[in-house]
Amino acid sequence: MYVPTFDDVLAAHERVKPYIHRTPVLTSRTFNEMTGAELFFKCENLQKAGAFKVRGATNAVFSLSDDEAKRGVVTHSSGNHALSLSYAGSCRGVKVTVVMPETAPQAKLDAVRGYGGEVILCKPSLEARETTLAELQKKTGGDFVHPYNDPRVIAGQGTCFVELRDEVGELDALVAPIGGGGMISGSCISGSTLSPDMKIYAAEPKNADDAAQSFKQGKIIEYDAPDTVADGLKVALRDVTFHVVTKHVTDFITMSEEEIISTMKLVWQRMKIVIEPSSAVALAAVFAQPELFKGKRVGVIFTGGNVDLDKLPWMKK
Amino acid sequence: MYVPTFDDVLAAHERVKPYIHRTPVLTSRTFNEMTGAELFFKCENLQKAGAFKVRGATNAVFSLSDDEAKRGVVTHSSGNHALSLSYAGSCRGVKVTVVMPETAPQAKLDAVRGYGGEVILCKPSLEARETTLAELQKKTGGDFVHPYNDPRVIAGQGTCFVELRDEVGELDALVAPIGGGGMISGSCISGSTLSPDMKIYAAEPKNADDAAQSFKQGKIIEYDAPDTVADGLKVALRDVTFHVVTKHVTDFITMSEEEIISTMKLVWQRMKIVIEPSSAVALAAVFAQPELFKGKRVGVIFTGGNVDLDKLPWMKK
Repeated sequence: MYVPTFDDVLAAHERVKPYIHRTPVLTSRTFNEMTGAELFFKCENLQKAGAFKVRGATNAVFSLSDDEAKRGVVTHSSGNHALSLSYAGSCRGVKVTVVMPETAPQAKLDAVRGYGGEVILCKPSLEARETTLAELQKKTGGDFVHPYNDPRVIAGQGTCFVELRDEVGELDALVAPIGGGGMISGSCISGSTLSPDMKIYAAEPKNADDAAQSFKQGKIIEYDAPDTVADGLKVALRDVTFHVVTKHVTDFITMSEEEIISTMKLVWQRMKIVIEPSSAVALAAVFAQPELFKGKRVGVIFTGGNVDLDKLPWMKK
Repeated sequence: MYVPTFDDVLAAHERVKPYIHRTPVLTSRTFNEMTGAELFFKCENLQKAGAFKVRGATNAVFSLSDDEAKRGVVTHSSGNHALSLSYAGSCRGVKVTVVMPETAPQAKLDAVRGYGGEVILCKPSLEARETTLAELQKKTGGDFVHPYNDPRVIAGQGTCFVELRDEVGELDALVAPIGGGGMISGSCISGSTLSPDMKIYAAEPKNADDAAQSFKQGKIIEYDAPDTVADGLKVALRDVTFHVVTKHVTDFITMSEEEIISTMKLVWQRMKIVIEPSSAVALAAVFAQPELFKGKRVGVIFTGGNVDLDKLPWMKK
């Protein structure tokens, strides 16, 4: 197991800068008044391909040797990582193949193809996914870029906090959503070097609190298909992310589906930006535990903005 | 009739700067590729109170003498002007009273009150509105701030183009939506001084093309309750705005309701920002007449982001 270092993050930043946005940091008087904290929102919803995932995917693709690049990259994902890797591949002219379940919505298949990725459909089971991916790797020799448990990906995600810290200076606390732990791990690696006294909170839906349970119990806990509106946060930690999270995260904050949805809607209403439910989880954590943040300077990472506008979670079904 | 000058705009800018955001100018590779133009989006949806209207309202409130300020200001509006004037009043400690039809949605009444404005309800007819407003003015001696046909308001709206021009340099064309003509008139006054060769296009829904008809026929045309999703654009020109529009606007572009709605949705999807239908009208105009803009540097004003998130126009009723 290789755990990326802060030097890996800096190298990643140089590598990905030409292909990603330095996303803006927004503030909101309304949310400052509601929480008593001074909040700084790092808006990765405004990132290329609509999510922070493009940082790690681009770092992975541009870390390949020319020989590796010729064989392309493969992954499995039905979410933002699939889009991001396809985008990154198109930037370097590297072939990207994504294994997706045949139950994935047409819009997601179209989006991956729109960014130039090739889609291989498989039955919607873990076993089918693994088999299909293994066959694909054997056939193409392509490099497997895991959505989060890959040092290149984690180092790439760490560039987000580097920019935030550079823009707003010292922070007392950072809050980011946690799914597989790629963003939080990257933030931990950057944060523990740049802001060693900063507290780092991982925000997670109560309905998918496997990472919080893993943190408490000291071993990786995995749920079978948890049910949460924050669909980017359903996956479980893996060895590298578990290691980093256990070492650096201050604590976990969990919240209900209702809290996530109402926070998401409030951000759209007051900040006029489109964030996905997983992003809302970070601000919902501040609302849920205001005593931790009152009077503090707090970074909040809005991780993405990819939403099905025809199926908003506050609309009646 | 007093027509504001560019000096009035500059004075307005100094007056309002402390109370408004200098809103960001965003770009979109997707929309540049779709249109062949280089588009610069001035994001007044991210403005205080969610719309450009706060520029004019703040200029009006801060132009009052101390004696006038004591008597407060009055207006009629069921939209962004009511919110903006209430916000501006709260910044100076000036009482704001807004005449609104008793049919106005509760959310709008709440929003005005949330910014500290007082609401006087009247029957939903032009006559009732005028009578109620006249009584109110007589009783309070309050200064009437018209939503758009007021030189202070027009000069305030002109500050938006000053910022855009300062940020992106020379432009070949500017596209802004037109309702009563306050934003377009302000932009014409700033644009004719700062960018005299720039073409200025007014974008209007086909279903409420009273301003386009007024421009063609050389006299003010007014419709009775036009039906368009762009509810900020239903009102008609008045003497000052008609004068400025006739003198400076290059041409009008009109589009269907479907074009407005699909453009609005596309902006939410690709730019991850919340814009209201009236804002979408400006980009829909570029989509409708791409040959006017291809290869050109084009400013597009997104005028506001106040939307009922429970009733999005692409959702089935």
